[in-house]
Amino acid sequence: MLPRGRPRALGAAALLLLLLLLGFLLFGGDLGCERREPGGRAGAPGCFPGPLMPRVPPDGRLRRAAALDGDPGAGPGDHNRSDCGPQPPPPPKCELLHVAIVCAGHNSSRDVITLVKSMLFYRKNPLHLHLVTDAVARNILETLFHTWMVPAVRVSFYHADQLKPQVSWIPNKHYSGLYGLMKLVLPSALPAELARVIVLDTDVTFASDISELWALFAHFSDTQAIGLVENQSDWYLGNLWKNHRPWPALGRGFNTGVILLRLDRLRQAGWEQMWRLTARRELLSLPATSLADQDIFNAVIKEHPGLVQRLPCVWNVQLSDHTLAERCYSEASDLKVIHWNSPKKLRVKNKHVEFFRNFYLTFLEYDGNLLRRELFVCPSQPPPGAEQLQQALAQLDEEDPCFEFRQQQLTVHRVHVTFLPHEPPPPRPHDVTLVAQLSMDRLQMLEALCRHWPGPMSLALYLTDAEAQQFLHFVEASPVLAARQDVAYHVVYREGPLYPVNQLRNVALAQALTPYVFLSDIDFLPAYSLYDYLRASIEQLGLGSRRKAALVVPAFETLRYRFSFPHSKVELLALLDAGTLYTFRYHEWPRGHAPTDYARWREAQAPYRVQWAANYEPYVVVPRDCPRYDPRFVGFGWNKVAHIVELDAQARQARQPLLLCPTLQEYELLVLPEAFTIHLPHAPSLDISRFRSSPTYRDCLQALKDEFHQDLSRHHGAAALKYLPALQQPQSPARG
Amino acid sequence: MLPRGRPRALGAAALLLLLLLLGFLLFGGDLGCERREPGGRAGAPGCFPGPLMPRVPPDGRLRRAAALDGDPGAGPGDHNRSDCGPQPPPPPKCELLHVAIVCAGHNSSRDVITLVKSMLFYRKNPLHLHLVTDAVARNILETLFHTWMVPAVRVSFYHADQLKPQVSWIPNKHYSGLYGLMKLVLPSALPAELARVIVLDTDVTFASDISELWALFAHFSDTQAIGLVENQSDWYLGNLWKNHRPWPALGRGFNTGVILLRLDRLRQAGWEQMWRLTARRELLSLPATSLADQDIFNAVIKEHPGLVQRLPCVWNVQLSDHTLAERCYSEASDLKVIHWNSPKKLRVKNKHVEFFRNFYLTFLEYDGNLLRRELFVCPSQPPPGAEQLQQALAQLDEEDPCFEFRQQQLTVHRVHVTFLPHEPPPPRPHDVTLVAQLSMDRLQMLEALCRHWPGPMSLALYLTDAEAQQFLHFVEASPVLAARQDVAYHVVYREGPLYPVNQLRNVALAQALTPYVFLSDIDFLPAYSLYDYLRASIEQLGLGSRRKAALVVPAFETLRYRFSFPHSKVELLALLDAGTLYTFRYHEWPRGHAPTDYARWREAQAPYRVQWAANYEPYVVVPRDCPRYDPRFVGFGWNKVAHIVELDAQARQARQPLLLCPTLQEYELLVLPEAFTIHLPHAPSLDISRFRSSPTYRDCLQALKDEFHQDLSRHHGAAALKYLPALQQPQSPARG
Repeated sequence: MLPRGRPRALGAAALLLLLLLLGFLLFGGDLGCERREPGGRAGAPGCFPGPLMPRVPPDGRLRRAAALDGDPGAGPGDHNRSDCGPQPPPPPKCELLHVAIVCAGHNSSRDVITLVKSMLFYRKNPLHLHLVTDAVARNILETLFHTWMVPAVRVSFYHADQLKPQVSWIPNKHYSGLYGLMKLVLPSALPAELARVIVLDTDVTFASDISELWALFAHFSDTQAIGLVENQSDWYLGNLWKNHRPWPALGRGFNTGVILLRLDRLRQAGWEQMWRLTARRELLSLPATSLADQDIFNAVIKEHPGLVQRLPCVWNVQLSDHTLAERCYSEASDLKVIHWNSPKKLRVKNKHVEFFRNFYLTFLEYDGNLLRRELFVCPSQPPPGAEQLQQALAQLDEEDPCFEFRQQQLTVHRVHVTFLPHEPPPPRPHDVTLVAQLSMDRLQMLEALCRHWPGPMSLALYLTDAEAQQFLHFVEASPVLAARQDVAYHVVYREGPLYPVNQLRNVALAQALTPYVFLSDIDFLPAYSLYDYLRASIEQLGLGSRRKAALVVPAFETLRYRFSFPHSKVELLALLDAGTLYTFRYHEWPRGHAPTDYARWREAQAPYRVQWAANYEPYVVVPRDCPRYDPRFVGFGWNKVAHIVELDAQARQARQPLLLCPTLQEYELLVLPEAFTIHLPHAPSLDISRFRSSPTYRDCLQALKDEFHQDLSRHHGAAALKYLPALQQPQSPARG
Repeated sequence: MLPRGRPRALGAAALLLLLLLLGFLLFGGDLGCERREPGGRAGAPGCFPGPLMPRVPPDGRLRRAAALDGDPGAGPGDHNRSDCGPQPPPPPKCELLHVAIVCAGHNSSRDVITLVKSMLFYRKNPLHLHLVTDAVARNILETLFHTWMVPAVRVSFYHADQLKPQVSWIPNKHYSGLYGLMKLVLPSALPAELARVIVLDTDVTFASDISELWALFAHFSDTQAIGLVENQSDWYLGNLWKNHRPWPALGRGFNTGVILLRLDRLRQAGWEQMWRLTARRELLSLPATSLADQDIFNAVIKEHPGLVQRLPCVWNVQLSDHTLAERCYSEASDLKVIHWNSPKKLRVKNKHVEFFRNFYLTFLEYDGNLLRRELFVCPSQPPPGAEQLQQALAQLDEEDPCFEFRQQQLTVHRVHVTFLPHEPPPPRPHDVTLVAQLSMDRLQMLEALCRHWPGPMSLALYLTDAEAQQFLHFVEASPVLAARQDVAYHVVYREGPLYPVNQLRNVALAQALTPYVFLSDIDFLPAYSLYDYLRASIEQLGLGSRRKAALVVPAFETLRYRFSFPHSKVELLALLDAGTLYTFRYHEWPRGHAPTDYARWREAQAPYRVQWAANYEPYVVVPRDCPRYDPRFVGFGWNKVAHIVELDAQARQARQPLLLCPTLQEYELLVLPEAFTIHLPHAPSLDISRFRSSPTYRDCLQALKDEFHQDLSRHHGAAALKYLPALQQPQSPARG
């Protein structure tokens, strides 16, 4: 212990008191920020996706820029911090913070995830997210949060459709459409017992702990109910554009990209009537809202200024073209929340945009898996499934040579379904979706695949968060891909050393929306006519609930990077005879496709039945409700073979109770006489290389096969004996 | 404006005063944390790479664990913050903060970069890094910081070798060797005018702004000179292991992973004599230091307790097996610095290790490019070259269809040379390094390449920060790769949409350490004998400073994934005749290699000269000081052709003044009769796919070629006319 004690500490305390008093005398003793806020300051929209401009931007000429004092909301004598003098008391440790966000469509769903990542990165409190979503966003975000399994985060969904009638009467020129306006009805839409909530636009990014923002509720006077940052652009004064007549506001008005809402007080104050009355009255003289909810919030506040608590500017740093935000952040040097409130988003031009862009990219590309870290100081209910998963993982033996396989099998990957805009195919009874999976090194297959398959596709992509952005740019840069709205891309986020091939296939399969699926692989190009031919075949064969068949599409391969793809079976046979094409894996693994009986196919005019045989792994068209792939097969090997076995076994089982004679009733595998698909060459994958070079890898695959067979016996009893020989085949080093 | 004013503020100020006085009475008025620290607390080493254990860990049985009170260093009544009651004044805005780190070798250099990334992520002040390095670390870090170009970061290097004599007399069992001890001599090694510095181990990670740590200097009394956090494990009490006799210390002693040093006061107090005297005296009874500098720091502090300022525990949260740190961080819930002070590093077992690991991985995988963001509130000298780069980028026209190419050409990529441990080859006059570049999708080539080329290699890898870690694991998991110390891997960090092929080649070329280089591509496997054959040929041909020749290695290709690699020219010719092999790009681009004259090569018994011709792009062996590749060629196309032109043109120019008859003196391109290399198949790269599908891409490549030719004319005058026809050849869609 060092000799320290009261005398020194007394001196320090006295000094502090002195400083405090000095500050009091110099700054009028205002411990909040408000006194130092200048008159109304300009900013940006703040409505749902929060752009600066109305839908049809008028003449963009600059008329004059009003002066704006710098005001970072910094306390006296504090040059390096944005806090308002003495900090507001921090929220009680582990208090649950509530956040509401309105989110609709594919693109906003991507945005909201970046926002949530930034929030989770800095947060120290449990969070409850209240998401008002349309059906698209709900499907995406529900799947995402379910698979993300972030501790101490609860998510509730609210139907945007049900709120629409409450705001659809308001004429609105803002591109966010009706969704922006829905922030107005949150006091009634959110649970009645919820008293406080932070409302955020999808285009904000956190640069600090959200609990600091929550703590600002403590600044509210007894009557204040809405915390807002002022607008940070003179555009809002209505003097930047000709013929732009803004809605009434205090000065530049407030930006609604970040709102602290005292829901309890708003409900008490009759908010519903209040904003409706104001909106109706203003709409008598104004044609429409140009900034959705923000116009109405400002009009109400102008009438009831006592409602608003002005928040320090750093909590909503607005990055539009003409932003005056620099006066805020350059003084504060500490940003809390940035707001991309220009319709140009990251392409906006302002002095420090590179800085902000880098900051945003940090969270855009941030590996969301890392945010699964627990809040160990705040005990909380683990996310659904997390506890069992932890137990299963804990039971693994790290010394087991197959540990990597076991761990990979158990990994729950974050899944972002329909990462890009997608239109579901119209319901058609014989429609077929092509199902496949890929990683970054196969992106270049997509364009060709789109040319060969004009129908719907459901593709699972195994990517990191950063790669998902590269993929986005890749699609945007490709006219072929950008034109296709019927291709659904589902991002499965990478985690672990082995490629989870069957988990990926299951994600793509589960998201297929047509009655039939063509289970393909990304390095195959189907015949140009295959899509039409399959639909016609399904119809002609009368497939449906009664006749369950797997249609086999014969597989071929070329070893040439560039070759003239055959336009017909005749052309294909000519190439086969010329040695330009081979039947698939003819040299390396003929039994994978031998039962297809290529000799018979040459001559066939009609579909013909073939029998299942050991190691058969044809590319098939099956009903969407077919068995899922066995997720135990990760990395290279036996992943499709096991699926065909499952398919065969389940079909047999399904028929047994009816027929009581399973041996006579073989599963119907029908080879289509005009169907074909061709494998293009590529370098061996990392996983196949490991399989070839590592005896352990091969041993582990064998162990997986054995366990698969045990499970099969358990589920199907004696009928599974049929599949046993397959498991006893000698190993080949080139299975796929 | 809201009606608020003095009365409310006065009340708030009064309340604060009251609280302050209450705290003063309750806690003895100590505004620092020390009073609430219990007796000495345990922790971990803190020396250079900061492991917990001495080099030879004794019997690891646990004897007893002493009790340790929780002490997050939190102020009274503040449950959510780790600060000690009222904050120390923050450092003046934009004050330059000084940080010293000792770093030696390849692995510590990787560690230090992760530390620096975490520091840069949170920092708001300009930094000056003082790096005490060995030659290896200096080469790595100098290149890294030079190419990183982070604004407001200055780096100074100090030669560890020069400091060695000052500490090498101290017997030391710690695995950091001498380097850990060097922290003792920083007061004399750092510039005399430097008064304060933060000293860090390479295995710490920041979770907060380093200026908050710097601000703790303000807590020092007039005589204190060393700020430290106590050890956080009972191991340091010497009662966890049998026969472990610790050095003298106050309680558990202090951890030297994070140190605040008042260099000025230490110099004044005669630190050099002080620690030497103490160390000499203790070494009379103790055989060696087991924790390097930490033992000595603690022994000195025990003798002079007035020197030390105890820092709040959150500034060095120690994560060893038996850590007691939970008592610190679970109370504080706010971590400032974490310290991986177990020799097991990330594999250490403790309750919340997953949390800490995720936190560490955040910065390990963080895209360092994003840290190039400027500190716009603190004006600072831009890093060398940054200003010109900014100007050049600003001059680009975003509407130019080739904008992406222009931008990619100008991009300065962060470069981490010798990412993995590497031993330079011994100097041999005819030695040859294989030079190539690759990205993640070609990793599987490395093992085969190592089998084919037993000599030194210099490989540039184009990776993201996250991929670099995957690459590290890939090498560690491969016995073939892990065994090779003569392969240097240089990571060039990804940025931009086009593959900067020639910039990568230049990095690999610049790092080659032998007199000759074999300029290859990653998808080629050389003949097994090529390395020996090349060295013998160089010797036999008498190549050296007088005879400058490029030795041509004839290139072939196979379209098969798996084939039996020929062991001799005879075998190769047989495969060629059988149609299993072709001459390279025979079908698609024969003129790229036509001048090699394969017909002649079949029969050749001795090296023969060939003439340069348009579009020739052979794989060659040249002196290391050959011309660099033209970095303007990014993405696909013409990148090697241009280099061969450069090579030819420069050689001609060099001889002109001597011979005055350039047309007679052609550049010596010698084809070696027994040399060959074979291209293996792979799917087309993204860049070649874009080249094929995008007319704009092809147009931009043509523009680059034209500009290349203009520059060639400018540099070589009329002699460059020779190369003109090449530029006028009709375009082919399959150039590489």
